[in-house]
Amino acid sequence: MRPSGRANDELRPVVLETNVNRYAEGSCLVRFGHTHVLCTASVGTSLPAWLRNSGQGWVTAEYGMLPRATHSRGDREAARGKQSGRTQEIQRLIGRALRAVTNLEGFGERLIRVDCDVLQADGGTRTAAITGGYVALAQAFAHLQGMGAIAKSPLTDSVSAISCGLYGDTAVLDLDYDEDSNAQADANFVLTGSGGIVEVQGTAEKHPFSRAAFDELLTLAEKGTQALAELQAAALAEAK
Amino acid sequence: MRPSGRANDELRPVVLETNVNRYAEGSCLVRFGHTHVLCTASVGTSLPAWLRNSGQGWVTAEYGMLPRATHSRGDREAARGKQSGRTQEIQRLIGRALRAVTNLEGFGERLIRVDCDVLQADGGTRTAAITGGYVALAQAFAHLQGMGAIAKSPLTDSVSAISCGLYGDTAVLDLDYDEDSNAQADANFVLTGSGGIVEVQGTAEKHPFSRAAFDELLTLAEKGTQALAELQAAALAEAK
Amino acid sequence: MRPSGRANDELRPVVLETNVNRYAEGSCLVRFGHTHVLCTASVGTSLPAWLRNSGQGWVTAEYGMLPRATHSRGDREAARGKQSGRTQEIQRLIGRALRAVTNLEGFGERLIRVDCDVLQADGGTRTAAITGGYVALAQAFAHLQGMGAIAKSPLTDSVSAISCGLYGDTAVLDLDYDEDSNAQADANFVLTGSGGIVEVQGTAEKHPFSRAAFDELLTLAEKGTQALAELQAAALAEAK
Amino acid sequence: MRPSGRANDELRPVVLETNVNRYAEGSCLVRFGHTHVLCTASVGTSLPAWLRNSGQGWVTAEYGMLPRATHSRGDREAARGKQSGRTQEIQRLIGRALRAVTNLEGFGERLIRVDCDVLQADGGTRTAAITGGYVALAQAFAHLQGMGAIAKSPLTDSVSAISCGLYGDTAVLDLDYDEDSNAQADANFVLTGSGGIVEVQGTAEKHPFSRAAFDELLTLAEKGTQALAELQAAALAEAK
Amino acid sequence: MRPSGRANDELRPVVLETNVNRYAEGSCLVRFGHTHVLCTASVGTSLPAWLRNSGQGWVTAEYGMLPRATHSRGDREAARGKQSGRTQEIQRLIGRALRAVTNLEGFGERLIRVDCDVLQADGGTRTAAITGGYVALAQAFAHLQGMGAIAKSPLTDSVSAISCGLYGDTAVLDLDYDEDSNAQADANFVLTGSGGIVEVQGTAEKHPFSRAAFDELLTLAEKGTQALAELQAAALAEAK
Amino acid sequence: MRPSGRANDELRPVVLETNVNRYAEGSCLVRFGHTHVLCTASVGTSLPAWLRNSGQGWVTAEYGMLPRATHSRGDREAARGKQSGRTQEIQRLIGRALRAVTNLEGFGERLIRVDCDVLQADGGTRTAAITGGYVALAQAFAHLQGMGAIAKSPLTDSVSAISCGLYGDTAVLDLDYDEDSNAQADANFVLTGSGGIVEVQGTAEKHPFSRAAFDELLTLAEKGTQALAELQAAALAEAK
Repeated sequence: MRPSGRANDELRPVVLETNVNRYAEGSCLVRFGHTHVLCTASVGTSLPAWLRNSGQGWVTAEYGMLPRATHSRGDREAARGKQSGRTQEIQRLIGRALRAVTNLEGFGERLIRVDCDVLQADGGTRTAAITGGYVALAQAFAHLQGMGAIAKSPLTDSVSAISCGLYGDTAVLDLDYDEDSNAQADANFVLTGSGGIVEVQGTAEKHPFSRAAFDELLTLAEKGTQALAELQAAALAEAK
Repeated sequence: MRPSGRANDELRPVVLETNVNRYAEGSCLVRFGHTHVLCTASVGTSLPAWLRNSGQGWVTAEYGMLPRATHSRGDREAARGKQSGRTQEIQRLIGRALRAVTNLEGFGERLIRVDCDVLQADGGTRTAAITGGYVALAQAFAHLQGMGAIAKSPLTDSVSAISCGLYGDTAVLDLDYDEDSNAQADANFVLTGSGGIVEVQGTAEKHPFSRAAFDELLTLAEKGTQALAELQAAALAEAK
Repeated sequence: MRPSGRANDELRPVVLETNVNRYAEGSCLVRFGHTHVLCTASVGTSLPAWLRNSGQGWVTAEYGMLPRATHSRGDREAARGKQSGRTQEIQRLIGRALRAVTNLEGFGERLIRVDCDVLQADGGTRTAAITGGYVALAQAFAHLQGMGAIAKSPLTDSVSAISCGLYGDTAVLDLDYDEDSNAQADANFVLTGSGGIVEVQGTAEKHPFSRAAFDELLTLAEKGTQALAELQAAALAEAK
Repeated sequence: MRPSGRANDELRPVVLETNVNRYAEGSCLVRFGHTHVLCTASVGTSLPAWLRNSGQGWVTAEYGMLPRATHSRGDREAARGKQSGRTQEIQRLIGRALRAVTNLEGFGERLIRVDCDVLQADGGTRTAAITGGYVALAQAFAHLQGMGAIAKSPLTDSVSAISCGLYGDTAVLDLDYDEDSNAQADANFVLTGSGGIVEVQGTAEKHPFSRAAFDELLTLAEKGTQALAELQAAALAEAK
Repeated sequence: MRPSGRANDELRPVVLETNVNRYAEGSCLVRFGHTHVLCTASVGTSLPAWLRNSGQGWVTAEYGMLPRATHSRGDREAARGKQSGRTQEIQRLIGRALRAVTNLEGFGERLIRVDCDVLQADGGTRTAAITGGYVALAQAFAHLQGMGAIAKSPLTDSVSAISCGLYGDTAVLDLDYDEDSNAQADANFVLTGSGGIVEVQGTAEKHPFSRAAFDELLTLAEKGTQALAELQAAALAEAK
Repeated sequence: MRPSGRANDELRPVVLETNVNRYAEGSCLVRFGHTHVLCTASVGTSLPAWLRNSGQGWVTAEYGMLPRATHSRGDREAARGKQSGRTQEIQRLIGRALRAVTNLEGFGERLIRVDCDVLQADGGTRTAAITGGYVALAQAFAHLQGMGAIAKSPLTDSVSAISCGLYGDTAVLDLDYDEDSNAQADANFVLTGSGGIVEVQGTAEKHPFSRAAFDELLTLAEKGTQALAELQAAALAEAK
């Protein structure tokens, strides 16, 4: 039995609350159990230099964590004067995931910045951020459509993410912090609504794992992201 | 008539919601209208070097703003690699305000860090942060009392803060962003529950102002902080 | 009796020595007793981006302290790689004070940078810096007039600053370091030559203070800045 | 046909040259075709604070690239004043890979730092770094054994890494820079000598990919890392 | 004829004013014509880690320049967040020069920091800094003797410095800024009072120079530093 | 007898290997005994702002050292977030040396960056870097000639560098690390192929040295750089 008492293929309660910021073109407070991430999508025009006059846009992401999002208080990155390697790794991942379902030629020379700030953390912050960040991004595109700035959404699919891991020898879905700390292996999967793989990151925490075990994790992830895709669609439908 | 349509001595709706973070020893989400600040108080033991073995504790504050807390997205300070002068000025102010009502010899060699993170800004973030930060701090001391770590709260009074300004020639209470942008002068007042002055910061934005005008601002602030002190007391009573 | 032996409303000997730098368009070495600040005003043309092509100019200030300006040697900020929160707070204050008496539309698209470097510190460095910085700025405008670059000075008034504090229960003017370290409260006042208030910063160091006490401090400050305004006028008249 | 003309399952010529640094306890210049990485393993005793007095050691890695390792010269990270997100991501990966085959309790309270510096880059620098870094690390442990400091090597297996990708619809092994730039998907696999999976990082560059395609990549990687493991064993045998 | 109109072997008027800072254990305002450098020597006890418990002390130097010390205003290094290469080069030179005449085992485990801050620059700031820094250092040792902390001064000789250059084909002593900007070659010489060479730094600005020319420069430097040594001795004698 | 057993005027074995980087316009791996420096010259067009539209080009250098180039591992400068004073001093020296033999008006508005990275250090890294950097630079100019971008090489002479020192009372050429650590004085000389002096840097390590001793060092340096100039010419001839 896993520590959380959930079934091996059971997600935590997932809530996607939209329109949580009065200024952002898109916003979503995503909760995976006790993990809460505030995502906003901001539309701007100052593209990175290498994209100016290219006719295409760009989607990028930034990730942060409030100092007391965690069990013991961490340092504030702004005070330390630099972002950790972990932070940079995560925000690069979020950006790649969102761009994988966006036609960058479909919204003009605009820069969309998705900010994912963890208000409270209990494992799985990067996967929650991708899942909620997609909702904020989709809203921002809807906003551009509503303004008549673009004719149709440049999104080619939806995208969500989930972590899976080996707890003992058992593959389990959506690890919380306690489970993650004790897992033999941990993998994050980013999948599209239609089941395509966007990103796979698997890491052996204690011992190398087998190909068969990895296959089990991927099967769980397919199931989990399917459920997340439905929740995303519902949240976006309701937000209209 | 001021832009917000409020009476000159009318606060925005103020809500103090406690227990909003499952890890922090004290926490408060404070809302002054559309200004929302998440405050947590974290109890630790690693005092700054100059206080070690002094027998006393310390209270300090950090302040931050999510990039899209504002109408247009600002830079993330962690990404820029340093905190702005404004951020440092505000967090120093919050720390001084909270220490002014704390007996630093009354809770052992502990460090209490109060984090004030602005989720959404519409003027008055520093005064909201002090007002909510006090609530989080009081809860943290209640937590230490509950554990038996201290016999009584080291707080000597409550503390709250409010901004006032001259809109045209009229003194008004609790400026929102639009009002602040158009004010002739702007002042932040930090007062205790019993009416003592902890900090006064008045700045002429466009033209120098008179002593008489400044007196009017202070009178408004006394009224406003009195109301805030009652809201703080109610929130702490309910949180027990 | 206050530690310095001065009367409660007595300034330290104040000396404003002009033309102390052979390159700067304006310069003033200001001494408030043992506090010595070297102020220069430098005229340039590279405005901050948000002011380019606006038709107006800008006045900004930077503040620094030599490492051994103080009783024990402090770190060199350039070596530490960042300016402290205190430094940034002070230089922002100086800039606001000088802009409050300057018509920014009256000297073209020029940037005037006022550097205030503390050679020796004995309390009141920020108020000395504002007082001397004004003299350097006025000289720089006189220099532009002398060149025929502007028809008249864009200064709308003079500005000076002084600290006051509660030593025990007594309000005293112009605190030196020893007095400041033992004061119950400390306030810095920036006033124009005609008595308008530009900035007020009052802080309770040990205990909150009363409105009546604050009024006494302001009365002292009005007297002190009146005397400083006369010294500024005399120094500028002599420098012509 | 892939651009390099190699068979789909063909590695570039791989050379592992040991003892290339006269000071390091272990060293290896690894070449995967035109990708050249200089790896050194340095044995020290200053463990990170959280491991002191824990009885165990630690293995960490740092990664860098000479400015002209690439086709056009890049910035020097030391001159820019910070390591890029990419650099941090890669050095964290190398460290995790090496620790996955090391019994951290088997070499005392020592810190082994593996430096991987890219002298010339043509794709696959991180996988070459892991492959060569392992050889340097194994030599460092052999050095400690030779000195009598440890009784046996704490390595539990060997570890190597290879990239695979989808070129068009075809899975190919060991992408060079041209192939990588044009791949539909790119994955890095870190496997042990006995075939266990240590780390998997797969990214869709242009379009999401299928589970079947991912399986093909993994099959290629198993083959490639098997060959690398043999080359590592041969280099270490020869170095004795 | 050189631009300054001085004879080729003529120093600018040199003034060494001691006791210019009320806190520092030694201080000297040195003027070489329009070049003014404020030097302080501060005695402390926090040695660099590699010298703790070694029984010896250390002398180090820091160098800075006020932003408007120069003809056009330069950036403030504290604001830019780092010291320039030039600054670091100069402060390393000053430290080496002072240590060359100090018996580091003769004043206990003390750290003496010599700060050299350029108030106004007209060429030759580094040589002025060494010349004045020596005076401040000698005073600090006299202070330690006066306190009874050391029995005799650990200085083994005096040290001073001067620049020489080739103006056209002519060797000239003590270049000011205009002369330096137009020199064919520029050399800084650090010599002891008894004529030993501590440091030589010669640089061809436009064309390589000959050994014969270099010999002429050294001859001038011997003459110049001899005069400086006498001025140093006189200033120290007077300061007693 | 000096520690290395070499004759007092004997260089270490010097090898200049060209074309060691497949991308750089010029490259040279220079070995002075166990000191190995990889030099590349990169041709670009983004001149520093102060040279744009000036009609001339610029040559600049950067210097770095791999962390384990030295006997015990040093910090990685990119990880520490800044270049040391020593690094900056050396790269400024290399740049000056190369510019001294380059007609900056002879290759258009191009920026040539010479990177000198120390793979292994045993004393004399800066002199090796200048010697090898010249070869890389000469190749880059030959490359521009080969492309028809310039009609003839803008080099006016060759340049090389060597260190000399006083070991005991004896002047010796080309110090290795052991010799350098025990030298009484240490000097670096940069000379042109025709014997002109470009740069002289002499430092007394323990005691001031005499003019006569300095003359001996310079005589050795003339001999050493003459030999280096011949090796440079041979390497460049062979590389054609």
